Amino acid sequence: MNALTQHFSLAEQVIGAIRFVIGSDSAVLHEPKFSGNEWCYLKECLDSTFVSSVGKFVDRFEHDLAAFTGARHAVAVVNGTAALHIALKLAGVTSSDEVLIPALTFVATANAVSYCGATPHFVDSEERTFGVDAEKLRDHLTHNTEQRAGQCINRATEKIIRALVPMHTFGHPADMDGLLAVAHDFNITLVEDAAESLGSYYHGRHTGTFGLMGTLSFNGNKTITTGGGGAILTDNAELARHARHLTTTAKLPHPWEYRHDEIGYNYRMPNINAALGCAQLEQLSLKLAAKKELYERYRAAFASVSGVRLMKEPENCQSNYWLQTLVLESAQADQRDLLLQSTNAVGVMTRPAWILMHDLEPFKECPRMDLDGSRSLVKRLINIPSSSGLI
Amino acid sequence: MNALTQHFSLAEQVIGAIRFVIGSDSAVLHEPKFSGNEWCYLKECLDSTFVSSVGKFVDRFEHDLAAFTGARHAVAVVNGTAALHIALKLAGVTSSDEVLIPALTFVATANAVSYCGATPHFVDSEERTFGVDAEKLRDHLTHNTEQRAGQCINRATEKIIRALVPMHTFGHPADMDGLLAVAHDFNITLVEDAAESLGSYYHGRHTGTFGLMGTLSFNGNKTITTGGGGAILTDNAELARHARHLTTTAKLPHPWEYRHDEIGYNYRMPNINAALGCAQLEQLSLKLAAKKELYERYRAAFASVSGVRLMKEPENCQSNYWLQTLVLESAQADQRDLLLQSTNAVGVMTRPAWILMHDLEPFKECPRMDLDGSRSLVKRLINIPSSSGLI
Repeated sequence: MNALTQHFSLAEQVIGAIRFVIGSDSAVLHEPKFSGNEWCYLKECLDSTFVSSVGKFVDRFEHDLAAFTGARHAVAVVNGTAALHIALKLAGVTSSDEVLIPALTFVATANAVSYCGATPHFVDSEERTFGVDAEKLRDHLTHNTEQRAGQCINRATEKIIRALVPMHTFGHPADMDGLLAVAHDFNITLVEDAAESLGSYYHGRHTGTFGLMGTLSFNGNKTITTGGGGAILTDNAELARHARHLTTTAKLPHPWEYRHDEIGYNYRMPNINAALGCAQLEQLSLKLAAKKELYERYRAAFASVSGVRLMKEPENCQSNYWLQTLVLESAQADQRDLLLQSTNAVGVMTRPAWILMHDLEPFKECPRMDLDGSRSLVKRLINIPSSSGLI
Repeated sequence: MNALTQHFSLAEQVIGAIRFVIGSDSAVLHEPKFSGNEWCYLKECLDSTFVSSVGKFVDRFEHDLAAFTGARHAVAVVNGTAALHIALKLAGVTSSDEVLIPALTFVATANAVSYCGATPHFVDSEERTFGVDAEKLRDHLTHNTEQRAGQCINRATEKIIRALVPMHTFGHPADMDGLLAVAHDFNITLVEDAAESLGSYYHGRHTGTFGLMGTLSFNGNKTITTGGGGAILTDNAELARHARHLTTTAKLPHPWEYRHDEIGYNYRMPNINAALGCAQLEQLSLKLAAKKELYERYRAAFASVSGVRLMKEPENCQSNYWLQTLVLESAQADQRDLLLQSTNAVGVMTRPAWILMHDLEPFKECPRMDLDGSRSLVKRLINIPSSSGLI
């Protein structure tokens, strides 16, 4: 603690640092900004009368997403939850399975597993990336599972562990090399929940393109938005075709006949939402640059605040800095709620990480490994105002 | 057959009658029209930056829907399938249940039952309304079910028949008095699939307001559209609250904490789609009048065509005439495919009714009653161009 700050409480210092960067206006955690072709494309959409699930903006949005992320195929759907639901179904997840997901995630990850009738199996996250701790997961699987007929079986439940779903928390890429190796060694399919990480790269490759499939979200609080929306990324043409089929009620092509060959979903993104997405995607690079600049300014402002650090992108990664995050030192963990109260009270919106999944009523009985890393993190993380429009 | 038409085939006469009404341009089955405040509201939505699942247009759309339909509460969701899924869950449908639905419906009805883990039990439809045949259903339930502890049990499967979901086919109200009596007498909860019948009234009361809950759709092909969208109608405040809760990830209200008390869904309608809906709803009366006028013109044009009748709203009902429908006489049923081919070949889009649900692969093994009425109808129904913009 230096001479200038020693007379101020941690809350006062944190508010001071945030105000130094964003000014004295009140600020929400994340809000969208529409400064490109949004109006133009929406009008074009209305004029064409194609507002629903068929239309050129859906095709274009999918094309543009694939081009941006480097995935061979993108399938646009109504939201990130729907994307993950379909990706898990296509990964073969059924009601007799378990799916490894971080305890430290938004509830959509666990819900999507539940929609397949499967059971979430909660795994720990690491301080370095906020993502699944690959080494600890390997240790857990080594001691608690066995291979039978090429499948990973949880010895305690006798269920197949079918998939592993790392999530790129607040936009920071998880340890993909480590996780891919674990998935490979234990015969588990890897599906990435990249809902928060559009524009984030792990070793130069876009998040969401490492697993069999990856999923994105364009909810109103995300880096770019379509109102509500999501997408499935995959390099596998057959999976992309099947995802399109399943998300459009599994109707077989025919000029007038309505034949559906499996239980399908009404999950395709409407054209009007895709129109918004096309315009937003055109501005993504600018938004990413602004979010990086916001990080730099926060970093400078927080340099002199003791007891707290600003989360920096993991090594060899490029983060979209979706939500800027303060990490309290362990000794300051008891300050978290006071910090949340103080900041929100003065109009600076802040938020802790989500309540860990195994602490939620519907998931209390689900299997889990030791979660000390996640427990420690959740006591110490605080998201601060992160909109690209703050720059 | 009169002297003027006797030298023309049925297909030529049908095309002639349709062309007489809609002119020589090609015509799709149903397309939306945006001639009101759509653009104004979309722009307002963008300017406010509230495009996602919180925003004033969502609240307003729900208020306006309730006012229009006479339901006490309306909950706006991403589409009609999601509306039905949640309505069935709230009606207590679980994986050990069966749900009575018409075999003659769009696949969404059956899919929503499946999402609850329950089994569709297919029932027959009647010529008079295209809806569930109440008398025949009563007879089926009398002979095949028994009451145990106040629940209706299918004797063959030993499953509880939890709900009955009539659907108002092509906008024509089903026999609600008859169906409500059956539901009451057999202790079955009635949930209405009113996806096709916004603006349709049974004995002066809006469809979707008779059961415990009713559901609407605003897909691009419906009478009004929000791109993709749907709604749950109910007079029960607690059910409406619970529907809102379930469709917004079951998150408990708190300034920053993310606690979810049950497995929820990401099903709320985005504000940008609701903005479109508010503008469309303002024009609903005009659209309904145009669709009625289109019916009258078709009626006049088809008066002299033998072997086919134009479906008229059931007695004491007011239909929205969502899809205008030709009903072939039984002797002409073998002409259906030729009529479909001939009309579509000249740019007049027509369509048969959906393939009956029990004939679809995923539902082949589901329980069903005698479906002779539906089988007969599906061989003889043809929808013809029905857009309100044709007037």
